[in-house]
Amino acid sequence: MRRRLIVGVMGGGAADRRTTELAYRLGRLIAAADWILLNGGRNCGVMAASAQGAKENGGLTIGILPDADRRQAAPWIDVAIVTGMGSARNAINVLSSDVVVACTGGAGTLSEIALALKAGRTVILLEFDVRSAFAGQTAAGRLLLAATPEEVIAQIRRLHPVAPQTHPA
Amino acid sequence: MRRRLIVGVMGGGAADRRTTELAYRLGRLIAAADWILLNGGRNCGVMAASAQGAKENGGLTIGILPDADRRQAAPWIDVAIVTGMGSARNAINVLSSDVVVACTGGAGTLSEIALALKAGRTVILLEFDVRSAFAGQTAAGRLLLAATPEEVIAQIRRLHPVAPQTHPA
Amino acid sequence: MRRRLIVGVMGGGAADRRTTELAYRLGRLIAAADWILLNGGRNCGVMAASAQGAKENGGLTIGILPDADRRQAAPWIDVAIVTGMGSARNAINVLSSDVVVACTGGAGTLSEIALALKAGRTVILLEFDVRSAFAGQTAAGRLLLAATPEEVIAQIRRLHPVAPQTHPA
Amino acid sequence: MRRRLIVGVMGGGAADRRTTELAYRLGRLIAAADWILLNGGRNCGVMAASAQGAKENGGLTIGILPDADRRQAAPWIDVAIVTGMGSARNAINVLSSDVVVACTGGAGTLSEIALALKAGRTVILLEFDVRSAFAGQTAAGRLLLAATPEEVIAQIRRLHPVAPQTHPA
Repeated sequence: MRRRLIVGVMGGGAADRRTTELAYRLGRLIAAADWILLNGGRNCGVMAASAQGAKENGGLTIGILPDADRRQAAPWIDVAIVTGMGSARNAINVLSSDVVVACTGGAGTLSEIALALKAGRTVILLEFDVRSAFAGQTAAGRLLLAATPEEVIAQIRRLHPVAPQTHPA
Repeated sequence: MRRRLIVGVMGGGAADRRTTELAYRLGRLIAAADWILLNGGRNCGVMAASAQGAKENGGLTIGILPDADRRQAAPWIDVAIVTGMGSARNAINVLSSDVVVACTGGAGTLSEIALALKAGRTVILLEFDVRSAFAGQTAAGRLLLAATPEEVIAQIRRLHPVAPQTHPA
Repeated sequence: MRRRLIVGVMGGGAADRRTTELAYRLGRLIAAADWILLNGGRNCGVMAASAQGAKENGGLTIGILPDADRRQAAPWIDVAIVTGMGSARNAINVLSSDVVVACTGGAGTLSEIALALKAGRTVILLEFDVRSAFAGQTAAGRLLLAATPEEVIAQIRRLHPVAPQTHPA
Repeated sequence: MRRRLIVGVMGGGAADRRTTELAYRLGRLIAAADWILLNGGRNCGVMAASAQGAKENGGLTIGILPDADRRQAAPWIDVAIVTGMGSARNAINVLSSDVVVACTGGAGTLSEIALALKAGRTVILLEFDVRSAFAGQTAAGRLLLAATPEEVIAQIRRLHPVAPQTHPA
């Protein structure tokens, strides 16, 4: 069987207008590609915007909440996973994603980029160039840059030309 | 907005034939009610059977995996949440569920019943009467018994007569 | 090299006078045996009482806190491990213990007994006989009953006649 | 009551000779200051070296292990906290530390720096200048640079001139 690709979208809970718009457009395109959008689930910043974009385009949205209270979730989240684990849930965000996209963010987003690289995931940076922090590391080859949401989608298609197989096949 | 109810189905990774059949039927009924099925995601026992039942009836299935490897997931799981946290993920299973159903299981299932009660969830025991372990506790009133999957569904309908509201409303 | 044995003491955050006194005496005896006491760290019930007993007898006390705030810790805790993970930290409590003692408690304590058995630990029940909940399970052989703190110590000595070796040896 | 300060020492599991020597010296100085050393606990790189330095100087060493197996621990770890949570334990490392020191490392260490800043901790970078990655962030003021282990100690003394109070006082 085939399963739908899961695209993790990370980025700041506090986001400026441009970042929010990019996140919304990215969410729309992820839904259009029939991929599942996964993010941190809260009702603010990149999380809310990307979920809204996906949901308004018919997508499926998963939010991994840091707190123990489901009411934190943005209303565009279809399935809220309630961890009650604070930032430790960042590790779940990246492990659960086939590929990670990082929009502009703060220390939380940087932790997710680092955890994703540590876990062997490829990370696509959307207008958030932090490659210098990882220069010289073996994981640096899995850190890609994209200028637009459309470019993110094209990069994901190159990385995953076909839908993943379930296991056992 | 309204969201779909999330029903957590717990139970043994090693399950006998009768337990497996009950879990399969329960999964079918959860899908028929248009609820989301959430379980531990692995490809064995109650997890695989309940996911298969839901999936073959058009349901949406979420699996919270203990290990860091997505290939653990049963093929009937639509969205695998990869925690890499072992049994600590049991806390996520119950926090993420609006209501928890416990089929026959072992120590892992008992830990989930206890964690669910601790987190304020109602637990419906399907042919797995462990009420004596919780006798005398304040949480005991949230521990219900059901003889059939159909009765589980009826009990959930009584607990949740309408689909939950998203927050903020 | 040898290392000191770690004894996990579980039990209710709300505890009656008798349970509190037993926990205090147990803490004293664990310190007298030169073992490390590990518990849930909070400043109430069995956690505070067992830590006080150990600390006032010169012991070393480790508390695994559920919340993200160190100020939760009982003042008799030498080292507070701050998890910010709520009840998911119960899994850490038992994995970190060489042997687990369960004093009287509620759903949280029951979850720790179940998680300990699942993780292959032996659990000694001090005046908290919940063996019926685990009857018929393969893990039931690792569930022992003790009538007094002194008996708990004797049972631990039988299980661990010499201090464990560090690894690599 | 006063309690001992907990100094978290992060850094690569794979470390070159110079980094290992710095970590060892840092561990010695932390023990000499009568602080508790906390790290990731494994028997390699900065974890093993800093624990050895502290232990050989009479210090107390706490290791927060990623896996579920205590035998991972370096032999210089007095208390191994067994999380079974992989990199999610990085969040525990920094929450449990009063102050975090980062020696040279890879993606895991970067995740710990980011998580520490997110959690409000001050991070002292020992010959590991990744300040550019956090430039422009509000947390940047809590990211300090040190050229030697001795300078790290002096910075910690400035941040914590007296031992912390336990709570409740």
